[in-house]
Parts: sequence; structure tokens; C-alpha cells
Amino acid sequence: MNIIENCIKGKIPKEVKIIAKEESVPPNVLVENIIKGYVIVPQNKKRRNKNNFKPIGIGKGLRVKVNANIGSSPKRENIKDELDKLEVAVKYGADTVMDLSTGQKLKKIRAEILKNSPVPVGTVPIYQVACELAWKGKEISQMEPEHLFSVIEEHAEDGVDFITVHCGVTRRTVKVLKKCKRICGIVSRGGALLAKWITRNNKENPLYEKFDRLLDIAYKYDLTLSLGDGLRPGAISDATDKAQLAELLEIAELVKAAREKHVQVMVEGPGHVPLHQIEANILLAKYLTDNAPFYVLGPLVTDIATGYDHIAACIGGAVAAMHGADFLCYVTPSEHIGLPTVNDVKEGVIAARIAAHAADIAKGIKEATNRDRKLSEARKKLSWKEQKNLALVPEIIDELLEREKLKTTTPCSMCGEYCALRVSSEVENYEKK
Amino acid sequence: MNIIENCIKGKIPKEVKIIAKEESVPPNVLVENIIKGYVIVPQNKKRRNKNNFKPIGIGKGLRVKVNANIGSSPKRENIKDELDKLEVAVKYGADTVMDLSTGQKLKKIRAEILKNSPVPVGTVPIYQVACELAWKGKEISQMEPEHLFSVIEEHAEDGVDFITVHCGVTRRTVKVLKKCKRICGIVSRGGALLAKWITRNNKENPLYEKFDRLLDIAYKYDLTLSLGDGLRPGAISDATDKAQLAELLEIAELVKAAREKHVQVMVEGPGHVPLHQIEANILLAKYLTDNAPFYVLGPLVTDIATGYDHIAACIGGAVAAMHGADFLCYVTPSEHIGLPTVNDVKEGVIAARIAAHAADIAKGIKEATNRDRKLSEARKKLSWKEQKNLALVPEIIDELLEREKLKTTTPCSMCGEYCALRVSSEVENYEKK
Repeated sequence: MNIIENCIKGKIPKEVKIIAKEESVPPNVLVENIIKGYVIVPQNKKRRNKNNFKPIGIGKGLRVKVNANIGSSPKRENIKDELDKLEVAVKYGADTVMDLSTGQKLKKIRAEILKNSPVPVGTVPIYQVACELAWKGKEISQMEPEHLFSVIEEHAEDGVDFITVHCGVTRRTVKVLKKCKRICGIVSRGGALLAKWITRNNKENPLYEKFDRLLDIAYKYDLTLSLGDGLRPGAISDATDKAQLAELLEIAELVKAAREKHVQVMVEGPGHVPLHQIEANILLAKYLTDNAPFYVLGPLVTDIATGYDHIAACIGGAVAAMHGADFLCYVTPSEHIGLPTVNDVKEGVIAARIAAHAADIAKGIKEATNRDRKLSEARKKLSWKEQKNLALVPEIIDELLEREKLKTTTPCSMCGEYCALRVSSEVENYEKK
Repeated sequence: MNIIENCIKGKIPKEVKIIAKEESVPPNVLVENIIKGYVIVPQNKKRRNKNNFKPIGIGKGLRVKVNANIGSSPKRENIKDELDKLEVAVKYGADTVMDLSTGQKLKKIRAEILKNSPVPVGTVPIYQVACELAWKGKEISQMEPEHLFSVIEEHAEDGVDFITVHCGVTRRTVKVLKKCKRICGIVSRGGALLAKWITRNNKENPLYEKFDRLLDIAYKYDLTLSLGDGLRPGAISDATDKAQLAELLEIAELVKAAREKHVQVMVEGPGHVPLHQIEANILLAKYLTDNAPFYVLGPLVTDIATGYDHIAACIGGAVAAMHGADFLCYVTPSEHIGLPTVNDVKEGVIAARIAAHAADIAKGIKEATNRDRKLSEARKKLSWKEQKNLALVPEIIDELLEREKLKTTTPCSMCGEYCALRVSSEVENYEKK
């Protein structure tokens, strides 16, 4: 039985108990939210009893989660690099990773990531389809729907925990898109490939037309479906347009269908969105999909931050999560230019973690606020050691202390002898006399 | 005559004309806002006809501005370093700098920064007072009020364009603070020094008691007063407390008094503020001070991002600016640990610029949106050269292209041959046939 059904039957899976404890949520509340589809627990049945696996829940009442995209490209295929990225991503707080590998070694890389990942692993099966076609000198418009479904089943069989499927890119939504006069058209790889297939073949997206078949595979493996926003805006000017909303409406219907079959499902969101439109985007998505866990890529609040897109994304991510986005896909400094390096992965995860944590505080998650309080108490005492234990990136404190030649409890070198915290303590202590 | 009086008399100063043109605002609207005090133009009379000076306006209807704090500490006094920081800050888009130097060379450094800065320069005179006392083996509680006023006049005479004065740290607000049981007490250096002076001497803050005298000096030089929030929260748990609000109420009265004397004035704001309290903080400050330009330090949305506080600050800064903050003081990766390096200054300015730009887009500033649109058009065409011309940090695009070995119009190495933008163009072009 899958997780939803176990919950319905009152057999609370041990993963759910672990999550309830970890997140300080009453187990019955969590169970209720899983049954309603407000919370998902992405974990393939094949990975149920894996020793090093850390189950997570995504959705209502839980901490905001962070995903790190890793994976090779045809020009950079190095298994060790990808395992290093996995390690770094998990070290700095990624709650899941997605393996977006393309290139000859993609199956080997997927197998290695699945073997080594202590966190849920997601994939985008259509990338493999595109690669396999390319290896045979074919292109995406020649894809047989059967091929796509067999690759999806292959990923499920391998133990992948969640897959992105661009089911909302349909004949109808592609028509809507064409009227939109977008600056950047389609910026989702999977979305673009499917739009091309639909347009060239003048046929419906098999993932939409045969959504039940997709649900059957997902049900069999308890594979979580992440309904990809293939028509997400890739430029500030394209945000919140009719194409984006048409796709969201389509996706909202598919959420219902998935829930009816007890398939875990989440919804993907934009993309590039100006700051003042983020709240509306989140509220709309949450309302239309009846609180399906919402997974946003960014959103980036400007297009001009090339090289610093992790920063543009963490602004948007923090605001999105404060308003209800449950899951932030990181963006790295290499976004829009290239495949991230190991260091890019680190910087991307840290930025997204800051956004997620800021939103957790805003949402009233007690553990989040407590950690900040404890760190600030240590800061007031000028105790570097205690601060390090509570900081998001502990080792950077050592690096900075070393650079500034600071001792265990000396004031920081910004104010030095004029340290406000120390003077403030003097004021407080004077009064106590 | 100072800028406000020229505007009142209908003699529009050339600085105001330059700003109106630069910001695409009708000159009469700008003049009206300067007269009301909704916009300030920080520029000391002594620097009126300086050749390389770029006047800026801060406040209603204008682009969000960014300040970079530079300056030495007793342990790191290097004039060249500070001039390098100035250069880097201006290069990456700082609209003003503040020289917060302490240490033996502070006067020399201030003179050099004033000589070389093409942007308005701010200072915090009380730091010099504390240093001069320390050099004589005295401490802040031994400060003579006369000493403080003479240093303020010295800064004005040197040509400083705006000064932070912590006038709202009063006997009354310090009493309110004591009841607050804060985690971090006072985190403003100037605020802590004045609170100590007030407490030890059991006397009123001279900057408050003799505010008129301060106004006379400011009037004489057209020196802009930045009413510092000496009691700003320095921890998430301390945000929006009674001490912070008591000080804000005090400051609001001083804004009125300054405006009556035609002294330009802005108000400083927090600090550490959880994401969900930022909007209320800004609306309150703007309302209570009758739309005085609002200058925020951060705000940082979490306390645990040591080493990455520029990111915690830019999240808060973007949200604050979207809701009406006019001026963002950058925070660098060294915040809470040490004096920023030249590279920290760069990273801090870039993060704050991204926040300011995101807010400009949200506020409907056309130039901001247009730049994003143009960059995205270039992105769609895969034109790296055009993207570079429009990007916030142009040279990083070259670095990344070099790293990824990309040619002029090849797709980025993230998707490579599966480039969504290219596939999307194929879809669009196919339809046109």
C-alpha cells in the first residue's frame, strides 16, 4: 500500500511518525494533511527501507523545503562531480535533489545518485527520452508516446522518488501561449520539448491524454508526481500571463484526478515574477489546486542579475514561501549561463536555505525562531563558539574569525573597542548596581 | 540658500533638474516633494559646484537608492583600502557611501573620501568624539556636549553631505528599552554610546535637548540629517518592540521640527526584522514621519546567516523597498564579524542593488522594467553580447562564458543542445510557416 492509503487505513507509516517528530507536528494532523493531499512524502516504495534515507514531508504546517538540481550535461559528464554536488547539497541543507542529467552517462549517474542520496531524488524523465532519440539521430518530434511511458516506468523502477511531468502543456495551453507575445516563450526544457512534439505532430500531449496511465505507474511505486509548469514565465515581462494561468488551471484539474487515485502530487510554479506579483501567484496556485504542495523555481525577481541569480531567486523564494510556497528549488550563480559547479551548488543551497528559514520564521515555526534567538543570545555574549554551533554555515565563522584574527570572546573587528553589544551590556549592568 | 528654500522660491537648483531628468520625473513634481520633505537631495553646500559630483534624490517617486558603509577601524587603517572600497562601491552601483572610520587616521581618510567621492558622503560624528576621548584616556561618559557639536560642525565644514545623529535615544526611550528585556540590547554603536552617556550622567541626550542647535548647523551647510535608530532591533526576537517604536515616535516629532527650519531630514530604520513584520514596519514609519525618506539597514530577515548576511539583508531590503523604504544600507558578508574587505564591499553592493532593482520593478519604475525586458529579449536571441550590456554585473558574464567555453550565440551549457529557448523559437517559427 502507498503512504496515502496507509494513512487512510489508520496504519501510520514509520516515515510519517519520523516526520511528525522531526517537525513537532501532531501525527494525527500530519496524517490528515497527507490524506487530503496538503502534504506529500516523496519516497518511492523501492526505497522504503533504505537505511540512510531521511524521509521528508512537503506542505502545510511543515518547514519550507529546498531542492538542489544537479546532474550532468553532454559536455560535462563526470560521476564524481555529481556525487560531490550531492554531498555538498545535502551538507548545506538541501532536503531533496533532482538529477537532471543529460548525456551518455545519464543512467549510471542516476543509479549512483540514487544509491548515495540520503534525501528524496527527483528526475525529469523526458530528458532521457530526448537523449535516447538524439543518440539515434532522431529529434523530439519523432518521440513515440510509448517510449516516454517506458522511460517513466524505468525511473520509477530505479527508485526515483518524484518526477516532473509537464502534463499541462497541451494543445489548448500552447494555443493560449501563442497569443501571449512573450519575450522568452517557453523556458522549461521539458515544456519546450513537449510543445514542439505537440505542434509538429498536431497531437495531444501523451502525459495529458493518458494521464491515467501515468497515475497507474505513480500509484504502483508510490512515485510522487510534480506537475511541471512547462509554460512558466522566463522573464519578468512574461509573468502571470494567460499562458501561465491556462496551464495552472489545467494542472489544478490533474491534481484532483491524482488525489482520487491516491497518487501523491505537487504543483510547480514560476519562474521569473516581479516582487509585487508573487503573493497573488501563490494564493492563486494554492486556491486553484486546493492546497497542493507548491514547488517554486525561484521565483527570480529580476532578469538582470546574471551571475547572481541565486540572490534574485532567494528574494523571490523567501516572499513566495512566506505566502505559502512549500518547496523552493534553488537557483545557482551559474543560472542562465551554465551547468553549476560544486561551489555553485553550495552557494545556491545556502541562499535558498536562508530564504526558506526566513519564511519559516514568518510562518511562526517555533524551532526556526528559537534558533535565531539562541544565536543572538550567543552574539550578545560575544561567544563565537556558541554562535558557530547555531549558524547556518558554521565553518564560515571560523574562516572569518581567522581572517580578522579574533579570539574566543573578543568583539568583532567591525566596531572593535566601540562594540555596541559590549557598551550595551555596560549600560545594562550599570543600571543593575 | 539651501535646496528646500530655492525650491520654495521657484529657483529650481540645477541638481534638482539633473535628478528630474535622470529619474524621468516631472521637475515640478520633484520640487513639490522636496518642499514637503518627501524627497531629499543630500549635498553639502561646500560640495555644490564640485565637478565630479553626481547629485541624487532619495524618496517618493524615485528609484530606490543604495548606501555602502566603508571606513577604517583602529586595527585596520589603510587609506588606499578605503579608496579602493569607495571605487568598488561606486562601480557596482552605490548611490552614496558612509565613512564610518574610527582610529588615528580618521580625519585623513574622511578628507580623502570626500575628495574622491562622486556620490554623497555620510558620516557618524559621534564615532570621532569617542575616538578623540579614547586618545586622551577618557571614555564616552566623559563627553562634553560641546565636543559633540564641534565635531558635527567640523564634519559639515569638511563637506560631509549627510550625518547620522541618534537624537531619538533619550532618557525616556532608554527607560522604555530597559523594560523590553531584549536579547541583544542596543546594537547601534552611536546609540549605545549615547545611552551610556545618558545613563552615567543622568542627563538628556544633547542631540535631543539641543536639537535646534543641530538644526542650525545643518541649515548653514545644507547638511542632511539622518535620524539614526539607535534603538533598532539587532535580533529577530527584538523586532518591533516598544523601545523601537518609542524611538520612532520621538524621531517623528524631530522630523517636523527639522522641516519647519527647512533642514533636509531622513529617518533610519531597522535592523533585524522577521519577513512578515517588514510591511508593517515600513507603513508605520512612513505614516508617523509623514513620508520622510526612510533609510533601512537591511533589514535582516534572520540572525543565523553569518557570512551570508548580505543575502539575509537583501531579502529584507527588497521587501522593505517594495513597501516604501527609499534607501537601503547594504550589508556585507562580513557583517557581525568584521570590517568589510574590498571584495565584501563589492558583494554587499551587488546584493543591495538587486534588492533595490527588484523593488523598482515592483514600484512600476519604467526604466527598471525596460532594462529587464531588453535583457530577456537578448537572452531569447542567445546574444551574450547584448545581455552583457544590460546585466547588473557585466564582467561576470564574460567570466562565466570563459569558464563554460561558450561562443557568442551558443546556448548556455546548462541545457546545451536541449536549450529551451532554442526549442521554443523552433516552435514559434514552425507556426509562422
